[in-house]
Amino acid sequence: MDQGLKFPLYRFEKAVDLTQTLQNGMPVYPGDPSPSFDPAATIAKDGVNLTRMTLGSHTGTHMDAPVHFVANGIGIDEIPVSSLIGEALVIDFSAKSIGSGINVDDLKAKLDGTLVEGLFVLCYTGSSDHWGDPETNSNFTYLTADGAEYLVGKKIRAFGIDFLSVEKFHERSAPAHKALLQNGIFIIESLSKELKQFAGKRIFFISLPLKLKLGDGAPCRSIAIPIE
Amino acid sequence: MDQGLKFPLYRFEKAVDLTQTLQNGMPVYPGDPSPSFDPAATIAKDGVNLTRMTLGSHTGTHMDAPVHFVANGIGIDEIPVSSLIGEALVIDFSAKSIGSGINVDDLKAKLDGTLVEGLFVLCYTGSSDHWGDPETNSNFTYLTADGAEYLVGKKIRAFGIDFLSVEKFHERSAPAHKALLQNGIFIIESLSKELKQFAGKRIFFISLPLKLKLGDGAPCRSIAIPIE
Repeated sequence: MDQGLKFPLYRFEKAVDLTQTLQNGMPVYPGDPSPSFDPAATIAKDGVNLTRMTLGSHTGTHMDAPVHFVANGIGIDEIPVSSLIGEALVIDFSAKSIGSGINVDDLKAKLDGTLVEGLFVLCYTGSSDHWGDPETNSNFTYLTADGAEYLVGKKIRAFGIDFLSVEKFHERSAPAHKALLQNGIFIIESLSKELKQFAGKRIFFISLPLKLKLGDGAPCRSIAIPIE
Repeated sequence: MDQGLKFPLYRFEKAVDLTQTLQNGMPVYPGDPSPSFDPAATIAKDGVNLTRMTLGSHTGTHMDAPVHFVANGIGIDEIPVSSLIGEALVIDFSAKSIGSGINVDDLKAKLDGTLVEGLFVLCYTGSSDHWGDPETNSNFTYLTADGAEYLVGKKIRAFGIDFLSVEKFHERSAPAHKALLQNGIFIIESLSKELKQFAGKRIFFISLPLKLKLGDGAPCRSIAIPIE
C-alpha cells in the first residue's frame, strides 16, 4: 500500500522551554563563579529598568565548546549556527539511581539500531528533578568514559544532559568531556526536567548559546519542538 | 491552472547568524555597564578554561521585555518560547541617512499590503555597518513615535533593528519603546549587518534570549533561516 511521502511536521507553536532560569541563589557547579543579577537602573529612580549580570560561562543551562578542555579547540562563537538546530533523540535513564554512570551498555541498549549520524542525543537522568537540592550538586548521574567513546563512534552531533555536568563529580581528568570535545562533539549541560515529557521521542531541538568570543562555553536557551 | 499546495521550505542548513560577538571593548549604549569577559580558570593553570562574564542585560544583540519600560510588564523569562520563533519581514531603510527617523510614511511605503498580523519586522538601517565606530553610538537610525504606533496597529509580534536602540539617541521619554512594550511587542536591538543579505525578503527567524528571572531584557542569539 502506497502511503505516499511523509514529511516530519515540526510543531513550532508547541515549543517547550528546556532551560533553567537564571536568578540569584541558583545552583552552580561547586567552585564556579557565583552568579548575581542586580538592578543597574530602575523605573522608579531612572525611568528604566536595567540589570547588571555577573556569571560564569557555565551557569545554568549552557553549552561547552571544545576549548573548555582542549587547548587548541574551537570557541563557542565558532560553532556554526546550522549545527545548533536539528533533530534529537531523548533517552531516559531515570531508572538508574541518581549518581550512577551511564555506560556503553546502557547506551547500546537504548540506541543501537535507532541512532544515526548527526543527531543530538539528550539524556533525561532524573537528576534535574533535584535541581536546587544542594546534595545533588555533588552526586548526579553522569556519562562514563566508555559511554562517551561509544557516542564518538556513532558520530553524534552533540550530547545533552539534565544536570550540572556530563562528568562524574570531581573527576578531574574529565574523560567524558575530553572524548566528546576532542572530537568536535559539543555538550549541553543543565537541561531542565521538562526534558522528561519527551523521553523516548525524537524532537526538533534548538540550543543557542551567547556568542562569546573564543568562549569555552556560554549560557544558552534550549527548546524542544515536538515532531508529529 | 492548479499548481497544488505550496509549502514554504525552511533551509535550516543555511542558517545565518545575525548576532554581534560579545567581547571586551565592544560597543554598548552610552551609560550602560561596561562588559568584561575574563578567565576564571585556564587549562595551563587549572586544567580547564572557564570565563567570568560581567555585562548589562542590554549588551550586544539583545531583547527588550515589557518590564524594561513598563513597571508592571512581563519579564524576558515570561515571553513564551513559541513567540521567539516565526516568520519575519526584513525591510531596508539604508537609503535614509544614518541618524534619521523611520516614520509612519516610511513604514507604510514598505509594508502596506505585505504585512500580516503576528510577523516579526526587522529593519536593516545601515547603522550596523558602523558597529564599533564611536560616533555612531550617539547617532543611529531610529523608529519614530508614529512609526511605532503604526506597527502596534498592525499587531506585529516583535520589532528588530540593527543598532544599539530602537529609540532616537537620548530621547528620555522613550516613546517608541513604550508604544511597543506597552502593547506586548518585544524588541530586538543590535542585530548585525548580516541582516542586509535578507533585505526585502521573508525569513524564518529564531531569537532566543537568556532566561533571566523577571529580566528587563537579556542578551540573545538571533539567527535567520532562509525560506525557499
